[in-house]
Amino acid sequence: MKTRRKFLKDCGLIAGGAGFSYVSLGYPEWIGINKKPGKSSGMTLRFKPYELHLKHVFTLASGSRTTTPVMLTEIEFENMVGYGEASMPPYLGESHDSANAFLTGVDLTQFASPFLMEEILTYVDQIAPGNYAAKASVDIALHDLVGKLMKQPWYRIWGLNPKRTPNTSFTIGIDKPEVVKEKVREAAPYRILKVKLGQGNDKEMIQSVRSVTNTLICVDVNQGWTDRNMALEMTHWLKEQGVVFVEQPMPKAAIDDIAWLTQNSPLPIIADEAIQTIADFKKVQGVYSGINIKLMKCGGMRAAYTMISMARALDMKVMIGCMTETSCAVTAAAQLSPLVDWADLDGNLLIDNDVFEGITIRDGKIILPDGPGIGIRKI
Amino acid sequence: MKTRRKFLKDCGLIAGGAGFSYVSLGYPEWIGINKKPGKSSGMTLRFKPYELHLKHVFTLASGSRTTTPVMLTEIEFENMVGYGEASMPPYLGESHDSANAFLTGVDLTQFASPFLMEEILTYVDQIAPGNYAAKASVDIALHDLVGKLMKQPWYRIWGLNPKRTPNTSFTIGIDKPEVVKEKVREAAPYRILKVKLGQGNDKEMIQSVRSVTNTLICVDVNQGWTDRNMALEMTHWLKEQGVVFVEQPMPKAAIDDIAWLTQNSPLPIIADEAIQTIADFKKVQGVYSGINIKLMKCGGMRAAYTMISMARALDMKVMIGCMTETSCAVTAAAQLSPLVDWADLDGNLLIDNDVFEGITIRDGKIILPDGPGIGIRKI
Repeated sequence: MKTRRKFLKDCGLIAGGAGFSYVSLGYPEWIGINKKPGKSSGMTLRFKPYELHLKHVFTLASGSRTTTPVMLTEIEFENMVGYGEASMPPYLGESHDSANAFLTGVDLTQFASPFLMEEILTYVDQIAPGNYAAKASVDIALHDLVGKLMKQPWYRIWGLNPKRTPNTSFTIGIDKPEVVKEKVREAAPYRILKVKLGQGNDKEMIQSVRSVTNTLICVDVNQGWTDRNMALEMTHWLKEQGVVFVEQPMPKAAIDDIAWLTQNSPLPIIADEAIQTIADFKKVQGVYSGINIKLMKCGGMRAAYTMISMARALDMKVMIGCMTETSCAVTAAAQLSPLVDWADLDGNLLIDNDVFEGITIRDGKIILPDGPGIGIRKI
Repeated sequence: MKTRRKFLKDCGLIAGGAGFSYVSLGYPEWIGINKKPGKSSGMTLRFKPYELHLKHVFTLASGSRTTTPVMLTEIEFENMVGYGEASMPPYLGESHDSANAFLTGVDLTQFASPFLMEEILTYVDQIAPGNYAAKASVDIALHDLVGKLMKQPWYRIWGLNPKRTPNTSFTIGIDKPEVVKEKVREAAPYRILKVKLGQGNDKEMIQSVRSVTNTLICVDVNQGWTDRNMALEMTHWLKEQGVVFVEQPMPKAAIDDIAWLTQNSPLPIIADEAIQTIADFKKVQGVYSGINIKLMKCGGMRAAYTMISMARALDMKVMIGCMTETSCAVTAAAQLSPLVDWADLDGNLLIDNDVFEGITIRDGKIILPDGPGIGIRKI
């Protein structure tokens, strides 16, 4: 009960809780079930808050943390259950409270069938602006459910070859040289490392990595550089160090500087913070070499698929990334990975309390599960 | 044998025919089977030329004709057959000869499974430039096959609501007032008429239609107007006549004139000849209000789906159109129609020798068949 009371408190549900039923399953208890009484559709959305524990303190240019709040979702229809997840690192502005509020307002009983994905997800998107992680948690659960109803994994529904998955990068956070070296040793199975930069010790970070391994590196500056000449100089130095691309080198508002850097850099410059949804394409086209798509930024698998198609049509590079997430959202993103140039799908590897099994990594390469839907299994 | 000899002659296969097997089916004979001997994959592509007979002489700004050459395709895999079609009105530059040459070079035996759609269609697209109708004939047959293997119609695989199909327009070609009036009377069940303009008798055409009916009209000028001031004046006049949009009013090369017209016109201006494939988006973005997508222009259902997604993301209107086609290609296009603003899917209604059953029209509205794949049946 202690855990349950804490969940209720996290969700602001202790007082009131009007409209909620509380159902106990084996797996942590459900907080919200937003099937309205008396409605006839078989579709039920339920959700519960969960807190991911990070194996290592996670340091970005914007700060450090040891946990990530997520919301786990399920959509049930005719005894079939689809799983979804919202991962909400604090800097993106969503939280257990906001996701609870959003998901409470999602009424799937108005749709006769989960196959009406276009209408259902358009409806979900229009409920409120923002809330992309919460939206993704519905989108992923719906995809999982529909794939299971079709008895097909999503890579197959999209016509993709599961053998064409890329290597995933493994993230090395900003830290002291000894800690970085230790993490790099742990990351030996990976064929590409994503090194976080932008905290003033960039060369030290890269040199620490290079003192342990010659494996490929990509770097994520998280908007940490402010001078374009210094940024250009760094891209040249990084290229010499075996770096393959640079993610979000400067603040997303520095459009002219980034466009100049992209034109002059020997390495591709990838947008992350600068592109969230499909609507942001006009901000990155002609400014960056490519984009980093994340389900939690764009609202889910459907939007991500469209963004990949658009990026391809615009001759832009595509990377698919993640937050710290369970294997649910990571595996959902991995279903799209045969379409991308680079993948950074290590979010489930950075936590010690995953609740699903999904993708595995073999010699650094993503191995997709062959089950229907997103292909995950509860642990 | 006479028919067969004629087909062989049409295809230039009488002399040589190396690599072809000739298989006789009930339905007109197959010319090409490009399964290479000794290869192990179960996927077989076969194709045959066919000639559609138009019920009425068809007059565009570019000329008149009474027939349309098509190539019918089938892909067979594990006793399941997917149907496809290339429709090749002469002004687009493809022919029985070109389609035969292209399809002869398509080797599907190298793919282990029809589910590898992304790879298969990327391979087909890269065999040669152009040949979009021939490419579409493979794309459609592959979609039909994969949908049948998944036991799902494509509208459902794409998550679309089959009840959201639009009304289709019915095309009224350029002709003398009495003929136009007669055609309009025949078109009484339709809720929107697509009136061809651009031959100098535009007002007469519209007045002939309006003398018979008050139903909605859209107009297709097929690049027939050359003066932008006259074009703008016409759009105002057409709006007063109950016209809802104008398709390709001026030559596709007149980009500045069209952009000016779009900015000033009271009616949406839709690109047809100006956009063929995904790569042409940059030519129409900011120039037109929307695009007319046709499977035979863009290479098939997969490219069309991507183009619709892109147009939506760019806030452009979307119309889906067709050539004179059998119910095969028309029904394939109709699977996408719940996503579009306007449909012009009457190509099968303009011929008197269809070989498939597929979509039907009820009170002007497209009714999708509920069978798997593209949902058609041989007559």
